[in-house]
Amino acid sequence: MATRSALHAAYPWIKTPLIASAPMLRIAMAPLAVAVSRAGGLGFLAGGYDVSTLETELEHAARLVRESDHPIHQVPAEKGVLPIGVGFINWGADLAVALAAIQKYTPCAVWLFAPATQPDDLIPWATQVRAVTSGRTRVWVQVGSVAEAVSVAEALRPDVLVVQGSDAGGHGLARSASVISLVPEVRDALAERGMGADIALLAAGGIADGRGVAAALALGAAGVAMGTRFLASHEATIARGYQAEVLRASDGGVSTVRSTVYDRVRDIHGWPQRYDGRGVINESYVDAVERGMGDEENRRLYVEEMKKGDEGWGPKGRMTTYAGTGVGLVRDALPAGDIVRRVLLEADETIKRLAGERSDTLLTLP
Amino acid sequence: MATRSALHAAYPWIKTPLIASAPMLRIAMAPLAVAVSRAGGLGFLAGGYDVSTLETELEHAARLVRESDHPIHQVPAEKGVLPIGVGFINWGADLAVALAAIQKYTPCAVWLFAPATQPDDLIPWATQVRAVTSGRTRVWVQVGSVAEAVSVAEALRPDVLVVQGSDAGGHGLARSASVISLVPEVRDALAERGMGADIALLAAGGIADGRGVAAALALGAAGVAMGTRFLASHEATIARGYQAEVLRASDGGVSTVRSTVYDRVRDIHGWPQRYDGRGVINESYVDAVERGMGDEENRRLYVEEMKKGDEGWGPKGRMTTYAGTGVGLVRDALPAGDIVRRVLLEADETIKRLAGERSDTLLTLP
Repeated sequence: MATRSALHAAYPWIKTPLIASAPMLRIAMAPLAVAVSRAGGLGFLAGGYDVSTLETELEHAARLVRESDHPIHQVPAEKGVLPIGVGFINWGADLAVALAAIQKYTPCAVWLFAPATQPDDLIPWATQVRAVTSGRTRVWVQVGSVAEAVSVAEALRPDVLVVQGSDAGGHGLARSASVISLVPEVRDALAERGMGADIALLAAGGIADGRGVAAALALGAAGVAMGTRFLASHEATIARGYQAEVLRASDGGVSTVRSTVYDRVRDIHGWPQRYDGRGVINESYVDAVERGMGDEENRRLYVEEMKKGDEGWGPKGRMTTYAGTGVGLVRDALPAGDIVRRVLLEADETIKRLAGERSDTLLTLP
Repeated sequence: MATRSALHAAYPWIKTPLIASAPMLRIAMAPLAVAVSRAGGLGFLAGGYDVSTLETELEHAARLVRESDHPIHQVPAEKGVLPIGVGFINWGADLAVALAAIQKYTPCAVWLFAPATQPDDLIPWATQVRAVTSGRTRVWVQVGSVAEAVSVAEALRPDVLVVQGSDAGGHGLARSASVISLVPEVRDALAERGMGADIALLAAGGIADGRGVAAALALGAAGVAMGTRFLASHEATIARGYQAEVLRASDGGVSTVRSTVYDRVRDIHGWPQRYDGRGVINESYVDAVERGMGDEENRRLYVEEMKKGDEGWGPKGRMTTYAGTGVGLVRDALPAGDIVRRVLLEADETIKRLAGERSDTLLTLP
């Protein structure tokens, strides 16, 4: 497949299918991103909407890569490329500040998401990131509908589209399909417009193990981006209470919900109206939606709850547990590298199983 | 796989993976059900919540099977089993009436769904259906969460669980995950309770082609149930306007929505509170949700719209187009048998592609 060799050319250390860790705000910092890339995945650092500390974070990542005795840094290093990506929340991120850091460290990719206006606001980002790095920093864009995928593909010709379905944790389009129909429909829409071979799709949302990875490949993706699974990694910068809640929660379609309440109680107001976020249902949600509590009182209770520390998470707590519907598939906290390796192995075993069943089928066909 | 041979034993005419057509109310009648089974799938007749005409419908199906020159009826016929299933909407369906028809025609399966109380109300159905057919009519139950799957499995030991995700068209749990995380989590939950080998899972929701089927198999299902795809079949009992709207609509995560408004305008009030239904967004929805119109006026406009016939469907119309997010993958109306054959072929090609890519991967691994 053209996209597969293109991925290998762009990120020589990766194994395929490509396993990316999502740039989860304040959680996906240098240790997680580097650990994922070191294991043959592609780790993303969360640049977020406030990029004032981005240079410091990239310096941290660069140091971790230099100190690594793993060949991860050798191949890209000769081109001066940092083998991790940076994710931005584009409604808030400052392009000039981000660009200076990108030019200095040349991360292998930027992951653009949630501009105020899609795709127009992303055009200067794509153009200038490519310009200051001579195209060595690749452009990834996260989309949540066929319309977004097509408009972004036509306007930016990204290297990768992260196709996020409704199961995803954290922010995404308030109304979207899951990857089960979204990925193949995006695949077809790009192919019909002659862009199928140039743009790799990564499926995101609800995927937490190798069965999900194999499913994503069947649907037409070249790999996956996982967030929730990496919340339960040793390298995630995450409160113990948050991680414990991820390990506890199950039946993610019932125990999580899409809402804007978790932004409101945390006093975050910049998200364009089309987005909300999926998190584990807690008292903030129940108060807002079932008991009709106003934002001010709900926010006050949230701030009060922060004093509890790790005890503030859980269904009876108020600290936000952003997580996708795959949360029930996450049962152990592991080193991020082990997650990458385990998921790749499971995906391979799944495909082996499908191929074996296929032979059975052919034998039984009349 | 145990479930695979169990499926072949129970339904000797099927090809695997199993492709079932969903019992869509008033649409999945005898011609569609028989056409699907004839092609090696398993077709379901919609019994619905009013079973007063069920016997007539089953007689129709039995006649179609008898008149068929295809071997479909031969193997099951010697056991007196009708090679189609019947789907019930259990909050409304009368057990005694249904049972008489089932005893007379012995459909190969019943598909139970949406009892007022889950799973308790289904226990007499499962017990008595098995009793009057000496177990020749198998018990399928549709669920939408891990909790439902486990409670139904423990209470009824169904032969098949239809695991319906959030992408599905028509009725389902208002809050659920898509199959991407739901199917593997159900699979694991059953395995942990020692029921993994006995109960086959069919994935439903957002699957409209062979890529979706291959994905479902990767996730742990033995096959799929498709509704939306069969709306665009020659044998569906469907208004031309409805079918045209299914062919027109795309980007299903954006163009469809989950709501109860389509029940309210059609004066249907029996659904338990936990359900709503996914349909293509039209004026009924926009009036109710964006313009705050009351049900009475919205219903009046709906009844008025009925006079327009096929023109009443579409985004500016008011006739209900129940459809899943996979609606954008449905681009042609075909004979139902061709749908089954095409989907099986695509699934096989997809698995072949994955197996081929797997060899590539192994070669590139260090």
